[in-house]
Amino acid sequence: MEQQQAAPMARNRKVVLREYIAGRPPREDDMVLVDGGTVALRVPEAAAPAPAVLVKNLYLSCDPYMRGRMRDFHGSYIPPFKPGSVIEGLGVARVVDSTHSGFSAGDIVSGMTGWEEYSLIDRPEQLSKIQQSDIPLSYHLGLLGMPGFTAYAGFYEICSPKKGEFVFVSAASGAVGQIVGQLAKLHGCYVVGSAGTNQKVELLKGKFGFDAAFNYKEEPDLTAALKRYFPEGIDIYFENVGGPMLDAVLLNMRTHGRIAVCGMVSQNALTDPVGIHNIFCLVPKRIRMQGFIQSDHLHMFPQFVSDMAKHYRDGKIVYVEDMSIGLENAPAALVGLFSGKNVGKKVVCVSQELSQCTF
Amino acid sequence: MEQQQAAPMARNRKVVLREYIAGRPPREDDMVLVDGGTVALRVPEAAAPAPAVLVKNLYLSCDPYMRGRMRDFHGSYIPPFKPGSVIEGLGVARVVDSTHSGFSAGDIVSGMTGWEEYSLIDRPEQLSKIQQSDIPLSYHLGLLGMPGFTAYAGFYEICSPKKGEFVFVSAASGAVGQIVGQLAKLHGCYVVGSAGTNQKVELLKGKFGFDAAFNYKEEPDLTAALKRYFPEGIDIYFENVGGPMLDAVLLNMRTHGRIAVCGMVSQNALTDPVGIHNIFCLVPKRIRMQGFIQSDHLHMFPQFVSDMAKHYRDGKIVYVEDMSIGLENAPAALVGLFSGKNVGKKVVCVSQELSQCTF
Repeated sequence: MEQQQAAPMARNRKVVLREYIAGRPPREDDMVLVDGGTVALRVPEAAAPAPAVLVKNLYLSCDPYMRGRMRDFHGSYIPPFKPGSVIEGLGVARVVDSTHSGFSAGDIVSGMTGWEEYSLIDRPEQLSKIQQSDIPLSYHLGLLGMPGFTAYAGFYEICSPKKGEFVFVSAASGAVGQIVGQLAKLHGCYVVGSAGTNQKVELLKGKFGFDAAFNYKEEPDLTAALKRYFPEGIDIYFENVGGPMLDAVLLNMRTHGRIAVCGMVSQNALTDPVGIHNIFCLVPKRIRMQGFIQSDHLHMFPQFVSDMAKHYRDGKIVYVEDMSIGLENAPAALVGLFSGKNVGKKVVCVSQELSQCTF
Repeated sequence: MEQQQAAPMARNRKVVLREYIAGRPPREDDMVLVDGGTVALRVPEAAAPAPAVLVKNLYLSCDPYMRGRMRDFHGSYIPPFKPGSVIEGLGVARVVDSTHSGFSAGDIVSGMTGWEEYSLIDRPEQLSKIQQSDIPLSYHLGLLGMPGFTAYAGFYEICSPKKGEFVFVSAASGAVGQIVGQLAKLHGCYVVGSAGTNQKVELLKGKFGFDAAFNYKEEPDLTAALKRYFPEGIDIYFENVGGPMLDAVLLNMRTHGRIAVCGMVSQNALTDPVGIHNIFCLVPKRIRMQGFIQSDHLHMFPQFVSDMAKHYRDGKIVYVEDMSIGLENAPAALVGLFSGKNVGKKVVCVSQELSQCTF
């Protein structure tokens, strides 16, 4: 063992969860940046019997589902974080060392990693190798990653779209919504989006090509607003927010409408979610309302990557991301999701080494 | 014209809607029994250009959807009643006179008719002829009629049932629920029903063969009750009631569960429906929640009648109805639905002439 060349060492800062939260959205001080000391840039021998991969994290993804992992709730499809331990999330990383035959130093990968500079990944099977191309690496956390795939699977598999139908997307400039709207336009639908600032509304209309968009914060009566934008009613609602918007949509749905429930970002707490009053509309309008998670549809992933890369290269789909620079800004980046501070897909650039950070 | 033999005359009492109701369930005095004078038992000449049928009503059906027609709300799939006019509903009747080539005096028919002794039906196309058999005529308003077909279409088309799945039915002893439970048992499912009296609970377990049943009024915590009856969770919920039961079910659903929304009889008013707080469960559990109306599935009707008649004759499905005798008791019969007074399918016997009334 002593013959082995000493591995280079590196500082490893981490973002850890302080303690579980309950009944409120996360705050910055729920997370703390700690100095994890220095780590040897080699998969440790102790990990040797099971193959592992040591990566340098480049980009980290901030996603709304992560809030659920900050709660002491074990009944979900993904376990909670552990207080005092590093936050986990999707990321793009460079392999530094590997004892897994599928990965070698220098590979670029995406998958579950830690909110830290270097992560030892003991389940490398869940990582995917990324071929570097003209598509920015960070887009593998958005356009070509989980949010893009959520949009793709949700739109094609859950919404059952038909050409000419009326589609409404809430949180429409977000990581998922911006893609849903563009896919719906490519499908020949009429598409309206809602967002929480006029800047986002302009983005929806100007950049993403929505037929119309509105700032829900400036609408005193959401039911009336939707009636204005959809005088004939809504065939498809891609639900990202929940709460009063869902109630207003239910009153404006058309017969045989479909609601794909992707998330409910307005529902900050499991402890006292807002009541939905118009569920009775499901019967006379024969509405199908369906929750989904992208991971149930992974058989479509290769087709998704191929379709989406082509659309992007053909200029038929554009993508907007909102990048924070530096691991120390990751807590604020995540927290900002729940008050709509991000404009587009929120990512954190941890390392500038592959020079694709836009700074 | 004067050569024509004078038609026999008959008294014709009617139940009319007094005025629209709002924000509450119907009361008996919302309807009034009026003397409609005497009518000639012949399709009047004035109706001659369009074929019409004059029927003597035998059985009338009391159904929860009728409440919706007592409101001044025109956005539904069926228009409201008119104040001062006779209540309409499904019924079984004998044809007295017909100018429609498809019907002759003496035919027994089912379809939309009036809450009166004799009805002139100006859209006879919607009537179906009934072959008299060993199955009671009134069952064409239940087991072999709209409620039975609602159960059949809802269970097979909306619930996507699989053998061995865990099925929960609310309002389970009602016109629809009792059939859903029995179909689910025939399909190899584990079936639990809820009802509002211990008598109904005994009926569910004893007569309809549910695996278990409970009185929801005796359960202080519906979520805990469902957890007790479904320790592994619910795959299929056949929703007849809405409100707090739906919230409790959402917390107890299994991954990929299905909720067929047939009706929400607990939701007495459009004006202030109870809020549903646990809709967020749709996402992590990937629940499909779907409203439906039997008339969208009419292609299955012939198969339904054939299947159900066979099940009945084979003793595999039983049916319980709750009959009121006399048109004067129809308002109370309808009103009783909304406080659960009926035990089984509620019908009103208007005429004893075919001697199948059980009195």
